[in-house]
Amino acid sequence: MPQSIDQILRSEFRLGFLGGGQLARMSAVEAFRFGMQIAVFATSKDPEPVELMTPHTTNGSFDDTEALTRFAESCQVVTLENEFIDSDILEVVAAKSGTPMYPSPETFKLIENKFIEKETFRKAGIPVCPYTLVHSREELVAFGNERGWPYLLKSSKGGYDGYGNATVGNIDQAEKAFKKLGGEKGHDILAEAFVPFRKELAVQVARNHLGVKAYPCCETIQENHICTAVLSPADIAPGLQEKAQEMAIAATEAIDGVGLFAYEFFLTKDDQILLNESAPRPHNSGHYTIEGTVTSQFENHVRAVTGLPLGDTSLRRPAAVMINLLGTHDRIAQVENAKEVLDSADAHLHIYGKLKSRPGRKMGHMTLLGDNLDQTYKEAVRLTQNIQI
Amino acid sequence: MPQSIDQILRSEFRLGFLGGGQLARMSAVEAFRFGMQIAVFATSKDPEPVELMTPHTTNGSFDDTEALTRFAESCQVVTLENEFIDSDILEVVAAKSGTPMYPSPETFKLIENKFIEKETFRKAGIPVCPYTLVHSREELVAFGNERGWPYLLKSSKGGYDGYGNATVGNIDQAEKAFKKLGGEKGHDILAEAFVPFRKELAVQVARNHLGVKAYPCCETIQENHICTAVLSPADIAPGLQEKAQEMAIAATEAIDGVGLFAYEFFLTKDDQILLNESAPRPHNSGHYTIEGTVTSQFENHVRAVTGLPLGDTSLRRPAAVMINLLGTHDRIAQVENAKEVLDSADAHLHIYGKLKSRPGRKMGHMTLLGDNLDQTYKEAVRLTQNIQI
Repeated sequence: MPQSIDQILRSEFRLGFLGGGQLARMSAVEAFRFGMQIAVFATSKDPEPVELMTPHTTNGSFDDTEALTRFAESCQVVTLENEFIDSDILEVVAAKSGTPMYPSPETFKLIENKFIEKETFRKAGIPVCPYTLVHSREELVAFGNERGWPYLLKSSKGGYDGYGNATVGNIDQAEKAFKKLGGEKGHDILAEAFVPFRKELAVQVARNHLGVKAYPCCETIQENHICTAVLSPADIAPGLQEKAQEMAIAATEAIDGVGLFAYEFFLTKDDQILLNESAPRPHNSGHYTIEGTVTSQFENHVRAVTGLPLGDTSLRRPAAVMINLLGTHDRIAQVENAKEVLDSADAHLHIYGKLKSRPGRKMGHMTLLGDNLDQTYKEAVRLTQNIQI
Repeated sequence: MPQSIDQILRSEFRLGFLGGGQLARMSAVEAFRFGMQIAVFATSKDPEPVELMTPHTTNGSFDDTEALTRFAESCQVVTLENEFIDSDILEVVAAKSGTPMYPSPETFKLIENKFIEKETFRKAGIPVCPYTLVHSREELVAFGNERGWPYLLKSSKGGYDGYGNATVGNIDQAEKAFKKLGGEKGHDILAEAFVPFRKELAVQVARNHLGVKAYPCCETIQENHICTAVLSPADIAPGLQEKAQEMAIAATEAIDGVGLFAYEFFLTKDDQILLNESAPRPHNSGHYTIEGTVTSQFENHVRAVTGLPLGDTSLRRPAAVMINLLGTHDRIAQVENAKEVLDSADAHLHIYGKLKSRPGRKMGHMTLLGDNLDQTYKEAVRLTQNIQI
């Protein structure tokens, strides 16, 4: 981290985002609060949310090393909103531009695909679900026989919100999924044992050269592999809370992570905690921190990658519940039936500024703070159940 | 208010700011949270803070009705960051563009200059400091003899942060100030009795067609006519808290205000509350609400002018203290010695993104939340005392 604090809190300091979706948008807001400028490298045909927040947009492709380098040269620090850029390209861009990039290309190399990611964390002593690479019908059969059916197949690249995953209950389903996930085209396919869990948990961690801070362990509620709600703190024993936080910090240290990282865990029926997935960026499971904690994951992301001291991650109130607002229509984005949310004390509506809505697309979220987790969750569901986007 | 909520929470909704300083910047952040786009009409040669937050900047003059009208036509709602645009021009722009403008030109007419403002509020039954227009040496003498020396002279236009004000102790000083304030050039000059006060108080009010909400009454600490700190809630009897809030709401209703309004009061030694000044916009006295209350003055400004229901104005913790961070150098803006603030739990640093610093310029602020007002104030002063900008 080459910058001193005095060099960061300058009006000419520009933070560049590779990717301009909602994660970058919510981080950009925090960069503005520190007086920084932002820039975005966007790849979509339609304007991405952050493009509407800056005069400094570059449109290009994540394969275009030259364009990425010129973009990086115009910034004081570059950060990434997603993990879909090749780490070799990141390495070249960081070296050519000389601009600090966090998380670093070296960190990305250690979690480059789902197989390498699991190897990295397993070797660091962090419990993960049993897994192996599979290449053939024989190996598909063998894994099922050893670890039990059903199990999971995952394409080692991709895999956002359940895309690139399949649950397979027998060898026919396994072969079909193997083919669909690109196994015959040479994509690495990972077989992973199905873990009967009683809860899915998540912890966000901010880390840089000045320190490391974990957020409270929260519970994520998934439907069809998409997160619908997050409850914080997770209703689990304090010892499990601490254990999940320790694992998340250990995982971040294993990859020498600088930035904001999120870890999803399974809590098994016998109270084991297994690392399921990681994300080298602010994460949907941490959106509740905007109002729910003293310093949000987005503010700590900005602090971590620019080199500022990290902020307090304590909860503001005993209960925080986040509900994802998914698109319900194919149309120009428009939010209907939000009046009750806007009228409710300590309910906070966030809309991401995506120009177009489509069914299932993450368009916004609502966070409700309260004193009791169950009641707050029920009320949060009630407040949002009629929202159409 | 012509829009339904469904029409406001649209990704194509654009909120236009006339003026792009820190008040617009902090409001713009809240507009982004609702998924809105923003645009700015800027008049400075140097980029104003909001110009760095949008691809939609118009550079022009507040006298240029044509340019203002074209700008308004590109927005769904227009709001103002300051009160220095002629209300006749606002009226023409609103009429020609057909774009809703809040606060409305009609509201501005009722507070157009300091004399009209005082007349408006006095007629509405709100206690104000004794005042009169003065035109000559004879009238300057007469006011002093009737209301006592020293008294205040104010130019009826202008008057931001004490510019355009003078305290005069005798007729020589009065004549000199009268001339300096433009009295001989035909500027309206107001004489105002000096009120021996024991505290200066402020209340912010959000209001639109869906409701009205007052913030807690806070205390402002002034040095050389510039606000250095704000303490909330003010350490006064609950009855006085309520009275100040009622007066602020009555004042907002007297001008049919739609938007966010701030009122500064004197609390006299015999516990009378007198209205001193008003501002038809978010105000320095309310910056603490970003973290200090459930819904900030900036979010409620955006809600009020766009037509959304207003949010809860309750305090999050028993004590909130805001310290203004004023420029200390003539230089490219750069913040030094902020590490202790960044390291402190529930201390929140805001830098406004102004490219250039100069001594006394408002460059940012820090809000500290705590449980005890005195201790929090002392700690806030300590944390910020070495900051250089």
